[in-house]
Amino acid sequence: MSHNSFGHLFRVTTWGESHGPAIGCVVDGCPPRLKLSEADIQPWLDRRRPGQSRFTTQRREPDQVRILSGVFQGMTTGTPIALQIDNVDQRSKDYGDIADRFRPGHADLTYELKYGIRDPRGGGRSSARETAMRVAAGAVARLVLGARLRIRAALVQIGPHPIDRSRWDWDAVDRNPSSCGAVVEVVAEGVPPGLGAPVYAKLDADLAAALMGINAVKGVEIGDGFATASLSGEANADEMRMRDGVVAFASNHAGGILGGISTGQPVVARFAVKPTSSILTPRHSVDRHGQEVEVSTKGRHDPCVGIRAVPVGEAMVACVLADHLLRQRAQNPDAPDTPRLPRN
Amino acid sequence: MSHNSFGHLFRVTTWGESHGPAIGCVVDGCPPRLKLSEADIQPWLDRRRPGQSRFTTQRREPDQVRILSGVFQGMTTGTPIALQIDNVDQRSKDYGDIADRFRPGHADLTYELKYGIRDPRGGGRSSARETAMRVAAGAVARLVLGARLRIRAALVQIGPHPIDRSRWDWDAVDRNPSSCGAVVEVVAEGVPPGLGAPVYAKLDADLAAALMGINAVKGVEIGDGFATASLSGEANADEMRMRDGVVAFASNHAGGILGGISTGQPVVARFAVKPTSSILTPRHSVDRHGQEVEVSTKGRHDPCVGIRAVPVGEAMVACVLADHLLRQRAQNPDAPDTPRLPRN
Amino acid sequence: MSHNSFGHLFRVTTWGESHGPAIGCVVDGCPPRLKLSEADIQPWLDRRRPGQSRFTTQRREPDQVRILSGVFQGMTTGTPIALQIDNVDQRSKDYGDIADRFRPGHADLTYELKYGIRDPRGGGRSSARETAMRVAAGAVARLVLGARLRIRAALVQIGPHPIDRSRWDWDAVDRNPSSCGAVVEVVAEGVPPGLGAPVYAKLDADLAAALMGINAVKGVEIGDGFATASLSGEANADEMRMRDGVVAFASNHAGGILGGISTGQPVVARFAVKPTSSILTPRHSVDRHGQEVEVSTKGRHDPCVGIRAVPVGEAMVACVLADHLLRQRAQNPDAPDTPRLPRN
Amino acid sequence: MSHNSFGHLFRVTTWGESHGPAIGCVVDGCPPRLKLSEADIQPWLDRRRPGQSRFTTQRREPDQVRILSGVFQGMTTGTPIALQIDNVDQRSKDYGDIADRFRPGHADLTYELKYGIRDPRGGGRSSARETAMRVAAGAVARLVLGARLRIRAALVQIGPHPIDRSRWDWDAVDRNPSSCGAVVEVVAEGVPPGLGAPVYAKLDADLAAALMGINAVKGVEIGDGFATASLSGEANADEMRMRDGVVAFASNHAGGILGGISTGQPVVARFAVKPTSSILTPRHSVDRHGQEVEVSTKGRHDPCVGIRAVPVGEAMVACVLADHLLRQRAQNPDAPDTPRLPRN
Repeated sequence: MSHNSFGHLFRVTTWGESHGPAIGCVVDGCPPRLKLSEADIQPWLDRRRPGQSRFTTQRREPDQVRILSGVFQGMTTGTPIALQIDNVDQRSKDYGDIADRFRPGHADLTYELKYGIRDPRGGGRSSARETAMRVAAGAVARLVLGARLRIRAALVQIGPHPIDRSRWDWDAVDRNPSSCGAVVEVVAEGVPPGLGAPVYAKLDADLAAALMGINAVKGVEIGDGFATASLSGEANADEMRMRDGVVAFASNHAGGILGGISTGQPVVARFAVKPTSSILTPRHSVDRHGQEVEVSTKGRHDPCVGIRAVPVGEAMVACVLADHLLRQRAQNPDAPDTPRLPRN
Repeated sequence: MSHNSFGHLFRVTTWGESHGPAIGCVVDGCPPRLKLSEADIQPWLDRRRPGQSRFTTQRREPDQVRILSGVFQGMTTGTPIALQIDNVDQRSKDYGDIADRFRPGHADLTYELKYGIRDPRGGGRSSARETAMRVAAGAVARLVLGARLRIRAALVQIGPHPIDRSRWDWDAVDRNPSSCGAVVEVVAEGVPPGLGAPVYAKLDADLAAALMGINAVKGVEIGDGFATASLSGEANADEMRMRDGVVAFASNHAGGILGGISTGQPVVARFAVKPTSSILTPRHSVDRHGQEVEVSTKGRHDPCVGIRAVPVGEAMVACVLADHLLRQRAQNPDAPDTPRLPRN
Repeated sequence: MSHNSFGHLFRVTTWGESHGPAIGCVVDGCPPRLKLSEADIQPWLDRRRPGQSRFTTQRREPDQVRILSGVFQGMTTGTPIALQIDNVDQRSKDYGDIADRFRPGHADLTYELKYGIRDPRGGGRSSARETAMRVAAGAVARLVLGARLRIRAALVQIGPHPIDRSRWDWDAVDRNPSSCGAVVEVVAEGVPPGLGAPVYAKLDADLAAALMGINAVKGVEIGDGFATASLSGEANADEMRMRDGVVAFASNHAGGILGGISTGQPVVARFAVKPTSSILTPRHSVDRHGQEVEVSTKGRHDPCVGIRAVPVGEAMVACVLADHLLRQRAQNPDAPDTPRLPRN
Repeated sequence: MSHNSFGHLFRVTTWGESHGPAIGCVVDGCPPRLKLSEADIQPWLDRRRPGQSRFTTQRREPDQVRILSGVFQGMTTGTPIALQIDNVDQRSKDYGDIADRFRPGHADLTYELKYGIRDPRGGGRSSARETAMRVAAGAVARLVLGARLRIRAALVQIGPHPIDRSRWDWDAVDRNPSSCGAVVEVVAEGVPPGLGAPVYAKLDADLAAALMGINAVKGVEIGDGFATASLSGEANADEMRMRDGVVAFASNHAGGILGGISTGQPVVARFAVKPTSSILTPRHSVDRHGQEVEVSTKGRHDPCVGIRAVPVGEAMVACVLADHLLRQRAQNPDAPDTPRLPRN
């Protein structure tokens, strides 16, 4: 029940603050004999890295990941994989004046109330920088899931503007600039049926925790999500037919999950990212001495954290699926890879 | 990592199928010397019980809970509390004709694909009946939280109709009849600051998992939730002032949680319940032999599961808060009960 | 991290006090479609039951186990299996005079110091009666392990008298009467290689916890155990040769485990059971008011708990192996069942 | 349920191989505002370090620990503490000739059978080098436990020679040279009563797992351990009297634990370390191709791993006690620090 770990059989533990010497993670439970080198991880990190567009923070971090354990001669060994990124750009002087002041909408206050101490430099542990390790762990998770299973995310709403889905272009995703709050959709195709478990290990419940646990996320939905509240039972039911011995669904309102267990359809999840709380206009606030102050933030920050949340959302979904894939194998090693019937 | 447990220090394990001899749960980790009898639990169950209004299922279940362990002379002993409800109304013949057929929108198919076997009577393990034990466990969690902490939920949207919040009346909640999909809001007042933990034990992440894990829930949001995607950073920030040595917030867009940790404001969560998938109009489906069939459901079911989800949502929030209260005590025994500054 | 659960993928949670209405357990994670009825469990319970010989307690408990969930039409469904035994013989008046007094060598004092309350009737939660549920869970674990894997235990020392291993007779085990402290040896044959995991999920570490967690156990050893301290490295090494493509060991000092992982040899563990602390001669003690008293025990108790610990030890080993079998399947689904080389 | 983590609220995850670039650990759940720097950890590592006496391995490792996160301005922050030691002396050529051969008594074979791959350099993950991180984590655990709680270990048997307890000298422990197998005793004084929990979180069960999980350990006992099998119930019971309002025990056969819960007496545990399996005389073995070979080891190894196991045993006990101290605080925040009666 570590506070800084997630997953069970595929388990990730992260550590590190924004302005400490390094950040890192330990991936435990990865199956052996998967081909793995830094080159399998770095491209995913590069997608998340700040400085990629004029809309993301101006901080320059090379974010070069190193594998420190768990790999021998280019193959995973089944032992814990330690990944690490040195923090090379730590201009902590930028943050000196807010060491004692709590930025509205930030974790500054709650860390102080909980721990009575915090590393204020760059948000410390609550910095979005921690999500780099999620992306790194997600790259390993993708290897566990195999090439058949494809996970992609994209911004579907930026600020108040929904994106026109009929004009969707996956190739455009990486070029997508933007600003303020956002909604990100993650789609996982090729998910075998049977992942998840009743009643407190539902796949959707674990996805909800994983996505809500990303910095600045305030809402999560699966399939039609909140819109289902307005549907009738008939409209919401995904009808089924057989095609070549495999179940074919007429629709996917359920987002690929029924009763907490994957159906074999694409798993669809969406999450809402609040606008960054780093603000240039002074706002009312208080400091750790209980004095009323005005706060504005001068550090380098993302105008739209939603952009960088895209690869993080993909990574979290990858980690959850990898964990459930291993769990499924343990209890149901003979379960089918597709929703074929009869099952055996 | 039990599939049928949730929580860590306040940990609940449930068992039982809709039409087996009984359902039950084990509540582990409850502090000792709390006054507890069946009378503390039964009223919450009675709120959830079917047959309370003409909009909920016609099944009659007395749902009399019994405490089988963990209580001595009316006080908890610190050892596991076993709660049990006998299933007295099990007309399983109603379900005979759907034993081999998969109802669209139900877990029938996914249980078959995962396990290759399922108890089809009344939904078996995936029946909403399991939620009775969540409500029972939640009643124990409320005792751990104490009277100062108050958790209430209500329907805020029924089908496509949002409820007018300005005309809100907590007393009317229990009389609220309704139908189809719904959105339920849970508000916890009196939550001390400091509950939750970075990075993978965030209070909002645990609430998201707990609420998404309720049957038929497809979306969860905290505070302003999905609406924050449309807000600017300035509009979304909850400004702070001091009042009598305690932080006073000008607003609560954050829903009482910042950086995964409670602020001391009311914790606000909402979840969307899809319309019940039990349907009278025949729908296309398949059976376990891979044959195409038409399915309609004749059993006794809730037209709006959202109604019965209200006490379940409260109970899940109570369990999550009780768990985090114990976790907070372990690591930060001297943390304050209110957001007062300076902290010490 | 439940205080009353053990195992991870094959996970057992027990509840109940000696003199409450019932005791029970929940077995979670059991694979589906295993044939299971009460008749698979009852014989193991009958072996443990008191009143079997004149050396065990005179209490008469029918110990009829009931399956309340997780089984449909005689097959496991993959959902939690609830097992329950009603307590039908609860002469609690026997214990009235020790409600406030702490028996030396018993948990009476420590429960009071920890919780400030305890159910004194028959030892409450610390009663050896709880072990009945371990035996029941162990019966389920044996089904998971399959008939190829055989787990047997026997007394190898009773009081100060070691048992002559050269005259060993497995068939005599069930007839073995005895008294006072004891050492029990458990041997599991047919264990596949590869169970266990470095570094904190070693098979021997999990066996040590499982066996040390049995009431009155004060020591655990694997293979040659404490005797290895006196051996030289050469004498202790189990040499290897090949026989029909499979590794053949010249000896089994290691008890079937190297580096925390099973070798394919029989797994051998031993545990020491202290003499029962229930005593007829008055002993110095104190009561919950801090008064000095004399205590002797008049209840019905086992003169040698080692006898009844034999099936409990078997059950704990079965549960640990079942858990590790599932874990192994998750990470290494293609691992061989025997120590054959080359591996693939 | 990470394979490479232990503890629950005070949780340690280790990573790294003997001849990789570094080894490390993450300590999660440590309370905030404890004074911590490398100087609090290094002395414990120096005690464990090889090259300290002519009886330990000749490998020279500076073992300089670095704190990479979780500490700000010399104080713990409550966030994960990452500790790391670079591997600076990695003469891997020494191990080249045993890459394919399995040393009897080593984990070589079982890693191959489990994973189908292993890092053979210096034992890889199964190297005793991993225990350096346990010692480092134990140093942090000592800070959590406070100065009142003192944990010391010593060799009590070296090879076949028991050490004369009547001539015991704690100061001599650090100078104690030795060889072959060994028995190590760990004594923790100042342990508050109430640590541990029934039934599957017993303090002795967790100690057993922690100590059995140390490399080369084959047996664990608490208090009088295996000797209790030969005692009568009367002889084994620790009688109690009151002294200044606190329970005073006449003896400590129980090793400070009754019913899985600490009594307030010193906690006493012992573990047996088998002789190092690294051997100079050629032994029969096999290689990964299934060929019969002779194996002898030429690397630098400890003649008596028992010597270096002394600080490791202390560290594991420290970690277990720190974990249980936090757990106790969570459930029983008002429990007394000494066995005083009446409790409240």
